[in-house]
This record gives sequence, C-alpha cells and structure tokens, in this order.
Amino acid sequence: MKLNRMYSFLNTDLKEIEKELQDTIKSEHPLLQEASLHTLQAGGKRLRPVFVLLAGKFGNYKLPVIKNVAVALELIHMASLVHDDVIDDAELRRGQPTIKSKWDNRIAMYTGDYIFARSLELMTNIDNPEAHKILSHSIVEVSLGEIEQIRDKYNFDQHLKTYLRRIKRKTALLIAVSCQLGAVASDAPREIHEKLFLFGYYVGMSFQIIDDILDFTSTEKELGKPVGDDLRQGNITLPVLLAMKDDKLRAKIEDVNEHISDIDMKSIILAIKESGSIEQSIKYSDWYLQKALKTVEQLPNNTSKIALINIAKYIGKRKF
Amino acid sequence: MKLNRMYSFLNTDLKEIEKELQDTIKSEHPLLQEASLHTLQAGGKRLRPVFVLLAGKFGNYKLPVIKNVAVALELIHMASLVHDDVIDDAELRRGQPTIKSKWDNRIAMYTGDYIFARSLELMTNIDNPEAHKILSHSIVEVSLGEIEQIRDKYNFDQHLKTYLRRIKRKTALLIAVSCQLGAVASDAPREIHEKLFLFGYYVGMSFQIIDDILDFTSTEKELGKPVGDDLRQGNITLPVLLAMKDDKLRAKIEDVNEHISDIDMKSIILAIKESGSIEQSIKYSDWYLQKALKTVEQLPNNTSKIALINIAKYIGKRKF
Repeated sequence: MKLNRMYSFLNTDLKEIEKELQDTIKSEHPLLQEASLHTLQAGGKRLRPVFVLLAGKFGNYKLPVIKNVAVALELIHMASLVHDDVIDDAELRRGQPTIKSKWDNRIAMYTGDYIFARSLELMTNIDNPEAHKILSHSIVEVSLGEIEQIRDKYNFDQHLKTYLRRIKRKTALLIAVSCQLGAVASDAPREIHEKLFLFGYYVGMSFQIIDDILDFTSTEKELGKPVGDDLRQGNITLPVLLAMKDDKLRAKIEDVNEHISDIDMKSIILAIKESGSIEQSIKYSDWYLQKALKTVEQLPNNTSKIALINIAKYIGKRKF
Repeated sequence: MKLNRMYSFLNTDLKEIEKELQDTIKSEHPLLQEASLHTLQAGGKRLRPVFVLLAGKFGNYKLPVIKNVAVALELIHMASLVHDDVIDDAELRRGQPTIKSKWDNRIAMYTGDYIFARSLELMTNIDNPEAHKILSHSIVEVSLGEIEQIRDKYNFDQHLKTYLRRIKRKTALLIAVSCQLGAVASDAPREIHEKLFLFGYYVGMSFQIIDDILDFTSTEKELGKPVGDDLRQGNITLPVLLAMKDDKLRAKIEDVNEHISDIDMKSIILAIKESGSIEQSIKYSDWYLQKALKTVEQLPNNTSKIALINIAKYIGKRKF
C-alpha cells in the first residue's frame, strides 16, 4: 500500500494544509518568497501534518484550529532543514539544490529564521498554554540537537547513547510533538496525548535509524545525494558506530574526511555493508518499531489508530 | 545624569533579571554555554528589560511574571545580534570578537537559534494570548528586516522610505514591543499599552538614527569597530542617503565596496561629515524624539513616566 492511501480520509484536509503552507510563507520579498517556496516545493512527505491530523481525531477534531498546529510543525521542520543544510554544507536535498547552494549561507540562515517566525505566528492561534510549553521545550531540544551535530562531527569516539540522544533531538522529538500537539489542540485527555507522544518518539527513532541505514544501502538516485554522504560529512550514524566494533574497520573509518577520494569512500561503504552492521541497525530500528506498535495498541479504536499502525509499519519496511 | 541613575528604583529587579539571563542560557554544552555567555557578557545597556519593567509599572507590576518578558526580549535581541554578525561579517561588537569571528558562522547560527528557543520557552510562562500575538508578529517583522538588510546592501538607489522601514523592523519594533509587552503582561489597559508601543517605536527610530550617525562621528575606541564600518559593509544609512543628494559626492560614495582602501574610506567619511548630512540626520532623530516625548506625556503620572522621559532625552543627546 502506498503511504498516502493509508490516510485517504484526510485528503481534503491535507489539501487545505498544503494551501495554508504556501499562503503562510508568502512574502513581499521576491528572494525570500522564492527561497521559501523552493524549500516547500522540494516536497517531502508532510509526515508531521499527517500525524497532527491523525492525533487530532482522538479529541474534538476541528480543522480551523488544528491546521495551525499542522502547518506550524511542518514549517518548523522545514526551517530546521534549511539551517541543517548550512551546517552540513549540503549541496542537494531530495535531489534539489539547497538554499545555501542556490543562494548562500546567509540567505539560508534568514530564510530559516523567517519560516520559523511565521510558524510561531500561526501557533498563537492556539489558546492552550500547555501546547506552547510542549512546543517551545521541544524547540530548545531541537536546537541542542543541532549543536550536537556540529560537536560530534568526525568524532569517532562517541557512544551509542550520544547517537541516540542526537537523533532523538534531531528527528524523533518533533514527530513525537506532532502526535502529541494534534491531540492537545483537540482537547484529548492527557493519557491519550502522552501515549501519542511516546508513539511518535518510537516511530521517529525507527524512522531516523532507517534513514541512516539508507545512506549506505540506497542509490544516489533514490537519495538525491551521493551514497555514504552522511559519513563523508562526518555524521557518525548507527551503522558506522556498530561497524567500528571491528578494530580493522574502525581504523579505516577513522581515515574518513571531507577530502576522501571516491574510490576510498566506496571501499569503506562496501566494508560497512559487509560488516553486518546494517543488519544490526535494522534490529535497533525494529525494536523501536515494536515499541511504537505496542504503544498505539493502547489507544481507543478508530480509523486514525489503524492509519497510525499502518504508517508505523510502512516506515519500518522502507526498502534497504 | 548617567543612564542607570534614571531608573535606580529598578536596581534590585534588574539584578534579578541579570541573574535570570545567565541562568536561562546555561547549557550542558560547554561550547554553547561559552558562546552564549560571551554574547551576554559583551554587555549592552539592557535597554529592553528596562523598558519592560518601566512599562509594567503602568499596570499590576509583578516581577515573577514580568521578568519572563524582560529576559525573553533581551534574549531575542541578543539572538538577532548573533545572526546579524553573520550577515555583516562583523569581527567585533562592542570591542569584543563576535561569535562568528571567535568560532564560525555555523556556531553563530545555532547559538542564535538556541538563545532564541530559550526565550520562547520563557515566554510560555505568560498566560496572555495577546502578548504572544504581539511578540510573534514582531519576530516575523524583525526577520523581514534582516532579509532587507542583505537585499539592500550596497544598493545606492534605495529610498529614504526603504531605510526607515528597515530600521523600524531592525530596531524600533523590538523596543516598541518591549514597552508594550511590559504593560500587557501587567494587565494595563489597552490605551496605555498602545501608547507605550508608540513611544517605544519613536524612541527606537531616534535611537537607531543616532547610532547610524555615530558610525561617522564617533571614534574607533567608542564604537568598538572602525569608523564608517557600516558604509564599508554596504549598509546605506541616513547620513549616506542624505549626502548622496549631492551628485559629486554620490559618485564617490557609489565606489564604496568591501575592498576600499583605508585612505579612500577616510576621504569619503570626511566628505559625508562636511556635506551637512549629519546635521540633517540629527533633525530626523530629533523629530522622532519629540514625537516620543509628546506620546509619553499622555500617560498617567508616575515614577516610570519620568524615567521614560529622561531615557528618551538621554538617547537624543548621545554625543556625536
């Protein structure tokens, strides 16, 4: 089943979200408008809005209210990607040139600031103080995750715990908060929105680990950037950490730097793939996936619950 | 009279604000902690917290509530300076190396993001939806001002209106909002917080114009950066715009670029100072100052009102 078939009952609402996304970043400044639209139209699965809407169905679902949260969370995600591309010196995202490569780092910085500011403005339509506390706390955590990304670059001595905390802050938290805030903004009971947070956290962890696996197992065409690019940029992910348990392979991996030749890089990618660390990483991802499925089971039965289960399973089965 | 003598009745509260500023940016990350503290300790007049507290005295002043606003606004200001220094390629601010020069652009970007995120977190302690709408709207405007700064660099064809709108967004708005939010968070009546907004706006405009004058008339020691640095960086300010009404001087100014020699730069600075544009700029600043004083006159009489008047006059008299 295709991803978007799993929540086709949201189609009309998601179209409105898409329109709202475009309207929100409209700007009198041609450059800003172009840079923001460029990011928006680069696509993406709009996973966060989907989670917000699905979670909203566990409470008193009102699109005019909940759409503010859905759009805000997608924009916060987008803004963080724009700043991320500056850090990663990324030339391509989803096969498209990044803002920092099409324009420059400064434009990327302020486009990110602007998109982020717009999302805050939207959020003020939500009159629930708890929603704001949850969101602002998660934004602090995301920004800590961004700093950790810089700090941990090319640091081959980091622990598994460091990696897990980083991907929690970088990815899982905003997915968790998307699930939670959809429910909070719809006045769902606390035990429900706390479960949804947990579900989102587990799904997000599983999702990011798979993303990190795909960096090695996918193709340049699928990735929209070279295979192994994360490692080349110094981003030490789970398959790398696990592969480094082998001393010989570790020594090889520690030689990676920005200027490594394509041939050397290819040989390291191959060695990592043959080390068994990919299969081990899949097990980690599966563990989180199972935790997600167990958590969602505890929610009341409705169409959203089925969709959440299907999405979680889909994310767990993205091809390697 | 020294600036801080004008509001000595706030001393105890301002000390608490200072402590709260330090506590808020504390972080488990040594790099982030150092970069944030570096910015905080570079000093500054803490003008925004002072305005917040003074404005709060027009309502039901409660330090535990209002200090969140005071600290948040100072941090938002700080975060915008950190990002500003990336744009301006500034090596020095207030005589200290900037984050981007001491570390790099990426650290500066994320330190700004982090400080900003912390300020949002603090603001969630304020349970007034209007306060959040006012603040988020002003943050959008500030980010637009930042984009305009890049767009307008070395653009010698810009109108006076463009300059005024840019400094409104860049400076005046956050001062206006400091005055307004102090009153809003203290539940002062609408007619009072709207007047305080207007007062802050006029003071902010006057303040920024004087800042732009001082770039030409002050000394390197006072400025903490070379005289005429704004112009050299392509920031076309009021004294420059007015000087360009002379065709010969305009041609000379249009030659300014990043690589201009010190001798050529000195000659242009001298020509601008001799053109009469400084005196004209002072008139603009005075016009805003008078508007500020007229606005503040309409507020109820109290100690804060006197302090606001004195601060406005002080700002208008900073030496050229």
